[in-house]
Amino acid sequence: MMRHFDKKSILEADSSYRRDLINCLSGYKSLNLIGTKSQAGISNLAPFSQVFHIGATPPLVGILFRPHTVERHTLQNILDTGFFTLNHVSEAFYKQAHQTAARFEGSEFEGTGLEEEYLDAFFAPFVKLSKVKLACQLVEQQTLAINGTVLVIGSIEHIWLDETGLRADGSLDLNALGTVTVSGLDEYHVGKKLARLSYPKVGKPVQEI
Amino acid sequence: MMRHFDKKSILEADSSYRRDLINCLSGYKSLNLIGTKSQAGISNLAPFSQVFHIGATPPLVGILFRPHTVERHTLQNILDTGFFTLNHVSEAFYKQAHQTAARFEGSEFEGTGLEEEYLDAFFAPFVKLSKVKLACQLVEQQTLAINGTVLVIGSIEHIWLDETGLRADGSLDLNALGTVTVSGLDEYHVGKKLARLSYPKVGKPVQEI
Repeated sequence: MMRHFDKKSILEADSSYRRDLINCLSGYKSLNLIGTKSQAGISNLAPFSQVFHIGATPPLVGILFRPHTVERHTLQNILDTGFFTLNHVSEAFYKQAHQTAARFEGSEFEGTGLEEEYLDAFFAPFVKLSKVKLACQLVEQQTLAINGTVLVIGSIEHIWLDETGLRADGSLDLNALGTVTVSGLDEYHVGKKLARLSYPKVGKPVQEI
Repeated sequence: MMRHFDKKSILEADSSYRRDLINCLSGYKSLNLIGTKSQAGISNLAPFSQVFHIGATPPLVGILFRPHTVERHTLQNILDTGFFTLNHVSEAFYKQAHQTAARFEGSEFEGTGLEEEYLDAFFAPFVKLSKVKLACQLVEQQTLAINGTVLVIGSIEHIWLDETGLRADGSLDLNALGTVTVSGLDEYHVGKKLARLSYPKVGKPVQEI
C-alpha cells in the first residue's frame, strides 16, 4: 500500500516525525568526518552527510551547512583558516564518529578517543583510523536565500587512501574499505554491491562490468 | 599501505582515472530518478546522485546539476515548467534506471520500458515501480561561479511511499524498501544496516536504539 502525504499533512505532523521523514527522503547519504582547527589551535571533528562531488578537473568538493546547528564550529574554522579535512567513516569507528556530534567543550578527538594525525604539514587534523582522507582548501562559499543554508566549495589538495580499496581504473571499492553510509539522522549502514554497469548507450543492453 | 596523491599527481593522472577516483571520494551517494516533462509535452527521466536534504520546515530538497552533461533536459524542463519528481531506485529496476542516462531521442520511459504514472494531477511524471516518490516545485536556483554547477532548490509538495518502509517515528527503513545507493559513476549497492544510534550527548555512551 502506498501512503500519501500532501504538503498540509507534512507541515501539520509532529516536528520530530517531520524531521525524521524529510531527512530520509533523499536516500542513502555519504558520511564524512570533517576535521578543522580553530585560529586558537583547538582541533574539531564533526560528522557530515552533506558532502558531494562538484568537479574532477580541478578536483572540487561541496559541503552544505545548515544554519544554527552544532556544526557551526566546523564552518567557522573553515571560514577563519581556509582548511579542512574529509575522512571516510568505517564500521570500526562509526559509533565514535556519531558521538563527535555531542557538544564537547574541547576537542572532539579527545572527547571521543579518536586519534588525530597531521600529514604533510597540512594545517587541519585527519582521523588516523580513516581509510580515505582528503586535505581541502576553501575556494568559494554561497548562502542560500531560502533558508540560510551555506554551501562551501573546497579544492582537493591531497588524497590519502588505503591501497586495498583502490582499483586499477581509479575507482574505489567502498565495500572493501568498509565505508559507512547514513540514512536520516541516526541510522548507519555498510554497502553491499549489486554490480558495476557498462556505459549507457541507446540500443545496447546494460551489462555488468 | 596508504597511497598518497598530491594535487599535481591528481591533475597529471589520465582523465578517466581522475574522473573515477574523484567521483568516488565523497562515499556512497543517494540515487534518484528525476522525472520531468517539457513544455512540448515530452516526458524525461534521468538518474541523479546529487540530491540532498535542505530543510524540513518547510520541506526542501536540493539538486546539483553539472554543466554540459546529458542531464541538461532535466534542468531545462525544471526551469521551463517549475515541476519535477524524485523517485527512489530499488534493486528491481536499477539497470533500467542506469540506462535512462543514454541519449534517447524521445522519452526515457519509452526507451527503457519503465512505466510512467501521473498522481494527483501533478504535472511531472513519476516512476510507477518506485517505492518513494516526491512531487517537487522549483523555488530557487543558483549558479556556482567556480565551474558553472547549478544548484536547484525545490519544495516537496507531495510524498508517496510504500507503507512497508515507513516506521512509526517517521523515519524510513531504506533496507526494507530496497533503495539503491551509487558510488562513483557506475557502481550500485544496497544498504545493510549496522544500527540506529541514540542522540549524542557528552558523558553518555552511544547506544543502539
